[in-house]
Amino acid sequence: MKKVSGYYVADSVEATSTLCSKAAKAGAKFFNLMSVEDVKIEQERINGLVINWSAVELSKLHVDPLTISAKFVIDATGHAAEIANTVVKKLGRKLSTKTGDILGEKPMCAEKGEADIVKNSKEIYPNLYVSGMAANAVFGAPRMGPIFGGMLLSGRAVARKIIRRHLPAGSTTLLRSSEGAKRNKARAGRQ
Amino acid sequence: MKKVSGYYVADSVEATSTLCSKAAKAGAKFFNLMSVEDVKIEQERINGLVINWSAVELSKLHVDPLTISAKFVIDATGHAAEIANTVVKKLGRKLSTKTGDILGEKPMCAEKGEADIVKNSKEIYPNLYVSGMAANAVFGAPRMGPIFGGMLLSGRAVARKIIRRHLPAGSTTLLRSSEGAKRNKARAGRQ
Amino acid sequence: MKKVSGYYVADSVEATSTLCSKAAKAGAKFFNLMSVEDVKIEQERINGLVINWSAVELSKLHVDPLTISAKFVIDATGHAAEIANTVVKKLGRKLSTKTGDILGEKPMCAEKGEADIVKNSKEIYPNLYVSGMAANAVFGAPRMGPIFGGMLLSGRAVARKIIRRHLPAGSTTLLRSSEGAKRNKARAGRQ
Amino acid sequence: MKKVSGYYVADSVEATSTLCSKAAKAGAKFFNLMSVEDVKIEQERINGLVINWSAVELSKLHVDPLTISAKFVIDATGHAAEIANTVVKKLGRKLSTKTGDILGEKPMCAEKGEADIVKNSKEIYPNLYVSGMAANAVFGAPRMGPIFGGMLLSGRAVARKIIRRHLPAGSTTLLRSSEGAKRNKARAGRQ
Amino acid sequence: MKKVSGYYVADSVEATSTLCSKAAKAGAKFFNLMSVEDVKIEQERINGLVINWSAVELSKLHVDPLTISAKFVIDATGHAAEIANTVVKKLGRKLSTKTGDILGEKPMCAEKGEADIVKNSKEIYPNLYVSGMAANAVFGAPRMGPIFGGMLLSGRAVARKIIRRHLPAGSTTLLRSSEGAKRNKARAGRQ
Amino acid sequence: MKKVSGYYVADSVEATSTLCSKAAKAGAKFFNLMSVEDVKIEQERINGLVINWSAVELSKLHVDPLTISAKFVIDATGHAAEIANTVVKKLGRKLSTKTGDILGEKPMCAEKGEADIVKNSKEIYPNLYVSGMAANAVFGAPRMGPIFGGMLLSGRAVARKIIRRHLPAGSTTLLRSSEGAKRNKARAGRQ
Amino acid sequence: MKKVSGYYVADSVEATSTLCSKAAKAGAKFFNLMSVEDVKIEQERINGLVINWSAVELSKLHVDPLTISAKFVIDATGHAAEIANTVVKKLGRKLSTKTGDILGEKPMCAEKGEADIVKNSKEIYPNLYVSGMAANAVFGAPRMGPIFGGMLLSGRAVARKIIRRHLPAGSTTLLRSSEGAKRNKARAGRQ
Amino acid sequence: MKKVSGYYVADSVEATSTLCSKAAKAGAKFFNLMSVEDVKIEQERINGLVINWSAVELSKLHVDPLTISAKFVIDATGHAAEIANTVVKKLGRKLSTKTGDILGEKPMCAEKGEADIVKNSKEIYPNLYVSGMAANAVFGAPRMGPIFGGMLLSGRAVARKIIRRHLPAGSTTLLRSSEGAKRNKARAGRQ
Repeated sequence: MKKVSGYYVADSVEATSTLCSKAAKAGAKFFNLMSVEDVKIEQERINGLVINWSAVELSKLHVDPLTISAKFVIDATGHAAEIANTVVKKLGRKLSTKTGDILGEKPMCAEKGEADIVKNSKEIYPNLYVSGMAANAVFGAPRMGPIFGGMLLSGRAVARKIIRRHLPAGSTTLLRSSEGAKRNKARAGRQ
Repeated sequence: MKKVSGYYVADSVEATSTLCSKAAKAGAKFFNLMSVEDVKIEQERINGLVINWSAVELSKLHVDPLTISAKFVIDATGHAAEIANTVVKKLGRKLSTKTGDILGEKPMCAEKGEADIVKNSKEIYPNLYVSGMAANAVFGAPRMGPIFGGMLLSGRAVARKIIRRHLPAGSTTLLRSSEGAKRNKARAGRQ
Repeated sequence: MKKVSGYYVADSVEATSTLCSKAAKAGAKFFNLMSVEDVKIEQERINGLVINWSAVELSKLHVDPLTISAKFVIDATGHAAEIANTVVKKLGRKLSTKTGDILGEKPMCAEKGEADIVKNSKEIYPNLYVSGMAANAVFGAPRMGPIFGGMLLSGRAVARKIIRRHLPAGSTTLLRSSEGAKRNKARAGRQ
Repeated sequence: MKKVSGYYVADSVEATSTLCSKAAKAGAKFFNLMSVEDVKIEQERINGLVINWSAVELSKLHVDPLTISAKFVIDATGHAAEIANTVVKKLGRKLSTKTGDILGEKPMCAEKGEADIVKNSKEIYPNLYVSGMAANAVFGAPRMGPIFGGMLLSGRAVARKIIRRHLPAGSTTLLRSSEGAKRNKARAGRQ
Repeated sequence: MKKVSGYYVADSVEATSTLCSKAAKAGAKFFNLMSVEDVKIEQERINGLVINWSAVELSKLHVDPLTISAKFVIDATGHAAEIANTVVKKLGRKLSTKTGDILGEKPMCAEKGEADIVKNSKEIYPNLYVSGMAANAVFGAPRMGPIFGGMLLSGRAVARKIIRRHLPAGSTTLLRSSEGAKRNKARAGRQ
Repeated sequence: MKKVSGYYVADSVEATSTLCSKAAKAGAKFFNLMSVEDVKIEQERINGLVINWSAVELSKLHVDPLTISAKFVIDATGHAAEIANTVVKKLGRKLSTKTGDILGEKPMCAEKGEADIVKNSKEIYPNLYVSGMAANAVFGAPRMGPIFGGMLLSGRAVARKIIRRHLPAGSTTLLRSSEGAKRNKARAGRQ
Repeated sequence: MKKVSGYYVADSVEATSTLCSKAAKAGAKFFNLMSVEDVKIEQERINGLVINWSAVELSKLHVDPLTISAKFVIDATGHAAEIANTVVKKLGRKLSTKTGDILGEKPMCAEKGEADIVKNSKEIYPNLYVSGMAANAVFGAPRMGPIFGGMLLSGRAVARKIIRRHLPAGSTTLLRSSEGAKRNKARAGRQ
Repeated sequence: MKKVSGYYVADSVEATSTLCSKAAKAGAKFFNLMSVEDVKIEQERINGLVINWSAVELSKLHVDPLTISAKFVIDATGHAAEIANTVVKKLGRKLSTKTGDILGEKPMCAEKGEADIVKNSKEIYPNLYVSGMAANAVFGAPRMGPIFGGMLLSGRAVARKIIRRHLPAGSTTLLRSSEGAKRNKARAGRQ
């Protein structure tokens, strides 16, 4: 990663594979080629997801999905905001937006989009958070184009809210080690 | 079938092929690879179906459907509730639900879904019954996931309502022999 | 099942679901929606299969197959004789036929096809057996049309050869209980 | 139908629907949307066909074909010569051509194609006849383009050979009534 | 055509090819494999059609349609009522139905469908007529299944209305010759 | 190009390739096989487009689009009026039409369509112009069929409005040289 | 067109549309969206083509092709050398190559490919010429990549051979006017 | 990565993203979604590739490929051995195998496959190397299943051969730093 004309510029394959590698090493579990068919709910709170292997949908086979439990869910499905859409389709206009509905992504305006995305990255239904382009789609903010700074800040913003609220008290350690990781990453970047 | 951690657990192929085999031996006729295109109606009562071979639809050929008469029809088409949808599309909001329309399946909540499905398994339009996941779709109850106890109880509940109402008086024998079959099944399970 | 003009006639759904149900109860394990990509081999003997979920192929995704070990394999894939074809493609003309190659199914001639299929149901490569329509395809015998008596006898013939050769000594019990099952089936047919 | 610059010219829809209508009235049975999967054979003579509904192939379903018996079969499948191809694929080079194989249609040469097609319209394997463009495909004669005179003469030539050989003695009446029908057709044309 | 249990029964290929042949001989021009993309209109009256070869749509190519002029147009496109739908989509609720919109085909009820179809076969927008199943679709009458008596009567009813209104005075001759043709047909049927 | 029965008639390939060639020589840049995914906007004015290679959409790959800046945009996407539709979908009914929405193309009426298209060729949203068939689609005027005179006049009309408003003062030279080009074209036509 | 580092560089849209426009103005007729299904032949000389609208093939409809006569045919179908392939498939190894067969395009080697293509641009079967990438495919020369100089020279070489041999004596005028056109083009380029 | 029953076991996403990330940081350039259409050759040595964006092939568009130069090429396309296949198709049996042709992957035999793959990872045509599953496909060795140790060793083996032969003398540093990277990786694994 280097700074060119005031922007941090990174090789796309290096940037995404490194993010993925570091997250996996930090303990994140990736379920590749999985689709979310529905949410799991109890007492008007999301408490899990109904998932299926994407190959089932692609091949138009009839195979039942599975259910997984979750303390909280993040909709980071981009422009489509797929999980937020499922909630509205199944439960009606219950999101924490002006109308309760998904407000819809506005046309490209990178400056405003980058500015809005971090504050739109938050809880939109009990235990359901939204981040990345899906956040702007839910709250009617502009799309942003291929500048990913806001995306990264959006992910960090949601992560911090969730760590503070859903993880046990000692998790502040996690926040700090996350900052430690950031410092390591910075050093790695210098190699 | 054996009991594991409080659940009856069965091999899926054994369970479905045995249900199918026993039903065929008891006299049920299966029309495989058939699609229902429409309902047949007289004096605001369903009295048959308009069916076509599924291959016709899959191959986008133009072949006319056939009509079969029926004293009653059960919509057991699962999440899609296909026949109930046809009735609403063709006749308007005439179902025996709160709005007359299909209320729509709610998100996954296995406990509530299992509890609701039996009482939702009933007549929804003169001579049209609904059972299985289609029952919860019509009455706006939650989906249930891969636990099939409620499915089986739903089918039995509708079968009993139909036997009592649509079959001639001597059919109580049929109800009993159905219980006899259940006992035979139990014994067969022990082999 | 009843006898009509000298033929035993059975409802197709009843016949196939009952065969499936009885086989499952007898201990057979069915891996539904699985495709065989390759064979596993050691010292010129088949000792397993390379399998993948059929959805992977249908959806053109790139997911690696798995390997299962097996003492013997039966190619019962019908007209296509898929496993025999894999062996010839991978290993050359090594089958126990006149040319070592698959001789190819001949045109419909039900009388000859029914007569040939049982004697063609045998080992075609160390630990690989063939039964059903695949047997006639491998040995260049005629196809047979929708009369399934030969199919059932073919399956039984291969099963007996395998039981005698691959199962431990005490398995004669299994052969007998298999005959007992046949008697039970006959009685069940009379109900 | 009228004569223009030395050619008989007919409206294509009128010509084909009238041929079809007259043939149906004369007793021909049409099985629409049927595909021929294989031939039926006994003692090296074709004695029927293995057929399936075309929708099965188009929709990639697995449904078994049926068998019909026939005293003789005419391959009138055009450029593809589908039945002749099946015979060669299943039985080897056994056709009554120079090589026993299908010689393959030659490039467009209407004059030669029209001249050859009638003499190529004959038996190519015991009880299998060929007519129309398939005849030129089997015997390596040129294709002919959209002039259908030779097609009609080819069909008549094969019909006469079959009537003389396969129908009982009194069928000469049929030959004559066929000529009577031709006269009626001529009169109808004049209306 | 023969009478079986009170119904006139006809071979489907014979019936349709004969209708087609007779219509062609009577002067009808068929444009096969043509799709109607739009209507042509002047002073709120249909005066032609925008047509394209169906292959263009099927192959997703971009080829401009053509325009043909017409004194009147009959929508006989069956269940889909394609031209009536185009009028509503392009011009709004302007049809001569209760709401101005297409009322939509009702479920199968052959008795009522057969009775309604003739009286629904009429002009629905200046110079646009509807006949066959499209007539019941436009006026909200039931579908009818594979009994074609009403279809034929519907076509005749619209033809008579159009002959009386759109053709010049001497066309009563045409009406009579049409009846003459019917008598000829009856005689032909007796051959 | 020659005049036939009062119409200027041109070979379609000659006409379109010559227009394209002359435009390229005059400095127009063509981005072939590009799709417009969205508009770019700032302070309620279009100031660019979000574009992607059409192959990405056709192959259903996930590749991010790019953004280009533009002083003004012309929607010349024909019947579909794709960019106008994007504006309405993303921003609501904000077009300079009676309702703010796209009024929708009316049925074929060449005389009226040709007359309307030039006056409909104008700005419909700040910095967004519309020309060609898209102009009639946006303002609810009739479609026109394969007579392209109006199309050419529509393009010229929009070009003139844009040159006068968006280009710097000296651009009147461009207007004149455009007329010079027209004169050259006329002379070229005479060759 | 300008010279950059020793190469003439042209805008691709300008270059191709100008070539097309100039050819149309010079009298060439383009049949767009047409496919060649076969050749027409007489006395072992190509004398025409069997063509069909490409939409027919794309939409898998069954529509008969048409025939056009031609004094000579140029296969300029690129890598596929489609017409040369048809000749070999229909008539056997009769091309004027070392083996009579298509020798097959070799890997990319721009220097050698550019050098070979002009001398490979010639007659390959009586009245059938080959030019462009198809010439190298037929004669087993290397492919060339996106440098089009050789392509243009190849087309000119074949054109000259044909003009000298197939056109009447006065056609030298055509050769000269072709050179005149080139000079005009040069001047047009300077505008 | 941890050791389980004698095997090193790694999370698949962690393993692949980390390999990718480290390679990118070490300077490797990834051209994602690119297909190789052909090789570039000079004096019987590979000296580059003909590549195209995969979207072009997937969308069946006609877009010319590009050419890139390369000192050497590694075919690591797995089972398909795509580049080796291109060489054989274009140049004939010129590979450094027993027959010059691709010998073809043998059935699954993990022990032998793992043992053979490293020694099969080498140059197969001047400047063309093969590694991974493609190496066993080219040299007729068995496939290996989902155990990736041999894959990694195969890649390292080819890398070392190339570094020694194609890189300038000082590149031993590169070899060493590669070993340093390995040590760093080991330490990173311990975190």
